[in-house]
Amino acid sequence: MNPDDAVVLLSGGMDSAVALAIARAEGARCHALSVAYGQRHTSELAAAALVARTLKAEQHKIVSVDLRAIGGSALTDDIAVPEAPSEGIPPTYVPARNTIMLALALGWAEVLGARRIVCGVNAVDYSGYPDCRPAFVEAFEALANVATRAGIEGRRIRIEAPLMHMGKDAIVQRGLELGVDFSQTVSCYQADIQGAACGQCDACRLRAEGFRAAGVADPTRYRDQGERG
Amino acid sequence: MNPDDAVVLLSGGMDSAVALAIARAEGARCHALSVAYGQRHTSELAAAALVARTLKAEQHKIVSVDLRAIGGSALTDDIAVPEAPSEGIPPTYVPARNTIMLALALGWAEVLGARRIVCGVNAVDYSGYPDCRPAFVEAFEALANVATRAGIEGRRIRIEAPLMHMGKDAIVQRGLELGVDFSQTVSCYQADIQGAACGQCDACRLRAEGFRAAGVADPTRYRDQGERG
Repeated sequence: MNPDDAVVLLSGGMDSAVALAIARAEGARCHALSVAYGQRHTSELAAAALVARTLKAEQHKIVSVDLRAIGGSALTDDIAVPEAPSEGIPPTYVPARNTIMLALALGWAEVLGARRIVCGVNAVDYSGYPDCRPAFVEAFEALANVATRAGIEGRRIRIEAPLMHMGKDAIVQRGLELGVDFSQTVSCYQADIQGAACGQCDACRLRAEGFRAAGVADPTRYRDQGERG
Repeated sequence: MNPDDAVVLLSGGMDSAVALAIARAEGARCHALSVAYGQRHTSELAAAALVARTLKAEQHKIVSVDLRAIGGSALTDDIAVPEAPSEGIPPTYVPARNTIMLALALGWAEVLGARRIVCGVNAVDYSGYPDCRPAFVEAFEALANVATRAGIEGRRIRIEAPLMHMGKDAIVQRGLELGVDFSQTVSCYQADIQGAACGQCDACRLRAEGFRAAGVADPTRYRDQGERG
């Protein structure tokens, strides 16, 4: 068992990149895991590979799970991604996505003998998503410790969400301190194949606000620079 | 929301078939879910389709997740399936498999508005698997109720494991009472493409013992009938 090994869920977006950078700064050997779940924005998987290399993860693995078969989200189905803020749980919510991703991370952690699972879940900007709250992370940790060989044998598994209570501006600043190259990350829900962003969706809006609040130039590439320039 | 809708995890084996039959007998509209996870014994997915039809599930869905990428099990890797009983957690344990399958069932339940998830998990015969115990099912139910829109909105989701405390013989008897055609089910960890069983692995042994203890003829087709006849 390697108490300093961590499986890090890496989406290719900015939050999970900063979570990886934090775990690396703490000295963890990081095994980055991305999930190809049928998302529209597959350029985020290419972004994740770049981020994993820059931040010196031990390895980067992509596991496929076909969430399109389950449906129910604007990120996997032919449902429009909203381009204005809305009330309640947004249509970009993918049912049980974080549960599924953490379950896959848990499986890999068992194989590796890793006892830390790190994710970029954040309650501040995503309060509309049920699976981005502290109660969710705590419940998953409780599950992890009864679901696994490690749990049965008394080696506690921790689920860590170091960004849980940070604002987007603090996340940007922490990432810059720790060497995250945000130009490698893709946040947009409908980024094109090269990772260029729409500039309209919730994820684009939150990202832009974060950079603005942090007083830092935003390296995001937009699809139509002219229109925004 | 449909309180009488249930997502039923259906592996193609005998336990989950009986779990489906029990849910149907209780009047639930059952949505059967099988997971193609890279298992050696893909004939169980064909078996699941047959069972779903016989037991009048509303629909049967197969979701793919590539657990071979994670590895660590005799069911997905080039690790031998043991052909004699062993101590502790057996090599056929797939890390976090039931967590992953329940997570997928939870996602589909959210999309359907179903508030029951039914599985064939059984603690009696599989005491070596950490994710086949009551504590696991309880922890997953707690997670489900913080991870989902339904949970947030106060519509409780239940995880049901009606076979949890039944012996294999009782499972056989209950299944026969409820119209399960066990000849459609495949239990063997290394069944061939037609579903013929090896007769040697743990799953074959437990199944044969169940039918013997129930005093019922076992309809299992073995690969080499001559050798066992």
